[in-house]
Amino acid sequence: MAKQIHLNGFVQNSPSPHSTGLWKHKKDEGIKHNQISYWTETAKVLERGMFDAVFIADVLGTYSVYGGNHESAVRHAVQLPAHDPLLPISAMAAVTEHIGFAPTISATYAQPYSLARQLSTLDHLTEGRIAWNVVTSYLESEAINLGLSGRLPKELRYDRADEFLEVVYKLWEHSWEEDAVVYNREKDIFANPEKVHAIDHEGEFFRVPGVHLTEPSPQRTPVLFQAGASPRGRDFAAKHAEAVFTKGHSLEALKSYTKDLRNRTIQQGRKGEDIRIFPMVLPIIGSTEAEAYAKYEDLKNHVSYEGTAALLSGHTGIDFSVYNPDQYLEDMETEAVQGNLDMYTKDPNKKWTLREAVQNHGLGNGTVKFIGTPEQIADKLETWAIEGDADGFNIAQSYSLETFREFVDHVVPELQKRGIYRTEYKGKTLRENLFETGNPHLPDNHPARKRKSLI
Amino acid sequence: MAKQIHLNGFVQNSPSPHSTGLWKHKKDEGIKHNQISYWTETAKVLERGMFDAVFIADVLGTYSVYGGNHESAVRHAVQLPAHDPLLPISAMAAVTEHIGFAPTISATYAQPYSLARQLSTLDHLTEGRIAWNVVTSYLESEAINLGLSGRLPKELRYDRADEFLEVVYKLWEHSWEEDAVVYNREKDIFANPEKVHAIDHEGEFFRVPGVHLTEPSPQRTPVLFQAGASPRGRDFAAKHAEAVFTKGHSLEALKSYTKDLRNRTIQQGRKGEDIRIFPMVLPIIGSTEAEAYAKYEDLKNHVSYEGTAALLSGHTGIDFSVYNPDQYLEDMETEAVQGNLDMYTKDPNKKWTLREAVQNHGLGNGTVKFIGTPEQIADKLETWAIEGDADGFNIAQSYSLETFREFVDHVVPELQKRGIYRTEYKGKTLRENLFETGNPHLPDNHPARKRKSLI
Repeated sequence: MAKQIHLNGFVQNSPSPHSTGLWKHKKDEGIKHNQISYWTETAKVLERGMFDAVFIADVLGTYSVYGGNHESAVRHAVQLPAHDPLLPISAMAAVTEHIGFAPTISATYAQPYSLARQLSTLDHLTEGRIAWNVVTSYLESEAINLGLSGRLPKELRYDRADEFLEVVYKLWEHSWEEDAVVYNREKDIFANPEKVHAIDHEGEFFRVPGVHLTEPSPQRTPVLFQAGASPRGRDFAAKHAEAVFTKGHSLEALKSYTKDLRNRTIQQGRKGEDIRIFPMVLPIIGSTEAEAYAKYEDLKNHVSYEGTAALLSGHTGIDFSVYNPDQYLEDMETEAVQGNLDMYTKDPNKKWTLREAVQNHGLGNGTVKFIGTPEQIADKLETWAIEGDADGFNIAQSYSLETFREFVDHVVPELQKRGIYRTEYKGKTLRENLFETGNPHLPDNHPARKRKSLI
Repeated sequence: MAKQIHLNGFVQNSPSPHSTGLWKHKKDEGIKHNQISYWTETAKVLERGMFDAVFIADVLGTYSVYGGNHESAVRHAVQLPAHDPLLPISAMAAVTEHIGFAPTISATYAQPYSLARQLSTLDHLTEGRIAWNVVTSYLESEAINLGLSGRLPKELRYDRADEFLEVVYKLWEHSWEEDAVVYNREKDIFANPEKVHAIDHEGEFFRVPGVHLTEPSPQRTPVLFQAGASPRGRDFAAKHAEAVFTKGHSLEALKSYTKDLRNRTIQQGRKGEDIRIFPMVLPIIGSTEAEAYAKYEDLKNHVSYEGTAALLSGHTGIDFSVYNPDQYLEDMETEAVQGNLDMYTKDPNKKWTLREAVQNHGLGNGTVKFIGTPEQIADKLETWAIEGDADGFNIAQSYSLETFREFVDHVVPELQKRGIYRTEYKGKTLRENLFETGNPHLPDNHPARKRKSLI
């Protein structure tokens, strides 16, 4: 069988979150993200397109590096309002049967004991369709509003996240044995206490002595997503993640990324195919190539310069309000610019001005755009999957939610026609659909499964 | 018009949470609390009965005082499994139009910045049907699993909760002005930065400099529930709460409670009627009085002694496993027993043994039972509302969810016939239905509205 492509829909509980300024487009419905019907419609559209999951990005702060305040973020709706990513999920699950939900939660600010309960609750309610996108957070504004004096250094954030995962693995995999709940009315035993174990975790960052508050859910541990880009982030993903999300800028960059990440995964004692790699793609679809490019021009005209610059300032920590928009990025002396914007500063084909980089970044957060007819886009997806060794794609939107409808109505049938995309869901849980191994649980080579000493 | 009664349905995301052992009853469906359909059915039944809200209790720990471990709680499902209270809400909201949702969240372990976002998100998604039951938590097992070395002293918990509310009030009421979001596509302004304010909170427990992450929701501040019983708890409720939940043991105790609480509320510069008082009642309904009492005997036979003793140990901090069940409570020397179990130790009509107290406590957590025909129960409700000055009742269940169905099908029509209960919802938001003032927002005499210095 030809290599099968998997797809996630990339969203956030915010108006036009990944295409800054697109809330102004007449086809955009992102303003309705505060309504349940927006979420149930999103889930139904993507399930009609047989996507694996709704991938829900999140920030718990404001983009306030640009100009040193939140004004640009407010004016241009730069991932603001930023509503909670977990709360619409049960409504989406109620109207769908197969699609999964992958919310983002920061391991830097959550408590492992309560986060483990939240995700177990959702894994029960969705009957095994939950993933967790583990992030360690980059915004200073998150840290200072959540009780820290500032953002933790990256190394420390990853050390803490590593122990955080150790705690939740103990709760999810080792606190309740599979047959602990007996529900025996005659003998008056709801669950067998001999099969429910306190985890007695005592570490550098966390002390969690208790038992998990939730009996085993269909997947136990939710499917683990990650998006680490730095070497430390990649090692973290190689150790823990079952799926990674990456911004792809070119096929060459993707090839190098997938090769590196699968090698790191093997070094962790896992198999290369144990990690699903999803580059992010913004599709711009036309019935002709010319129509698609005309659409691209129209979309670019809706991008907000100031809003996108504020987004980029948040991502990099550099206040771009002090730079001339027509300055070349590669001429900017700050080390931060050079390190954080490689896709622009190291582009062999082009010298990017700040204005051009911002304009490019305003659609799909600077990820690659696949522009063309459904056939042309399917060609690209197929090439990137095969030559780039990607397992699938996180599909971003220009205008929400119509981008998804267009993709599902036009590109999905083309992928199906080629035999590289499912025509029905085979598994019951998200993990079964993602890996097609028939196993709702983590494989035994995953570190979460290995802590057998507990029981 | 005759005094109108309001009702809430008292639930928890746990099997038979308030009647320990009733999971064994053949009519009990509490085991399905991990399924979305259980919650949507609960919401639909209570909305059919025109309840104000689904009141969702919660603990974030295990009852492990009894015997010094979690075994009894596991064996008898003593509010364990304990799933998250917020996550089923959007699914319930999707299938209802009027009923509100009042989840419990502890101000002791949450962060105000993220909690404010969660509740604003839900107030948006439900179109103004959210309340928050503010608790400060009593279980040691919550504290130690959530990063503290032990439970904070009660005074400190209330001091912290007081500042917690100050922070969230600033976020909800004063960060975004009502007309901040302009959504002006032509002028490229999503929201007006001059109308979005950083709260700059710097206090003893919290430092939250930022802006709220969510634009104003229909109610802004969710309806505030509280259940303080101690003098400090009552003052806290008198200052902040719009509704209180209390366990009523007798009409006399209720009279004294409502008088005291309304006086304290007036002392806080509010009106007595600004606080809605809801005693908890467990209804046991029969088509004849004899049938109702036979049902009561049957229900009592399903109560678990060990499970209820474990619950009571958690509530009081006393390990009852070391006491003889046939010992009289009033003979127990510990100060804790005397202070915490007044309803038994100071009962003028009866000397309670531990066994009897536990058996009584096993149905509806020891609250008053109204046993009889629908007419008799309606009589009691009317008497307690008028003579006891209660605004309504939190209806507990013996077996879930059939207790609610019985109440809605038999008692609600009787209340309606008497003209003391609504036959349709008048308001759009929960606050409008609860107070019938036509105002979705807090009144201006509430402390949350007074911090005008910010803007």
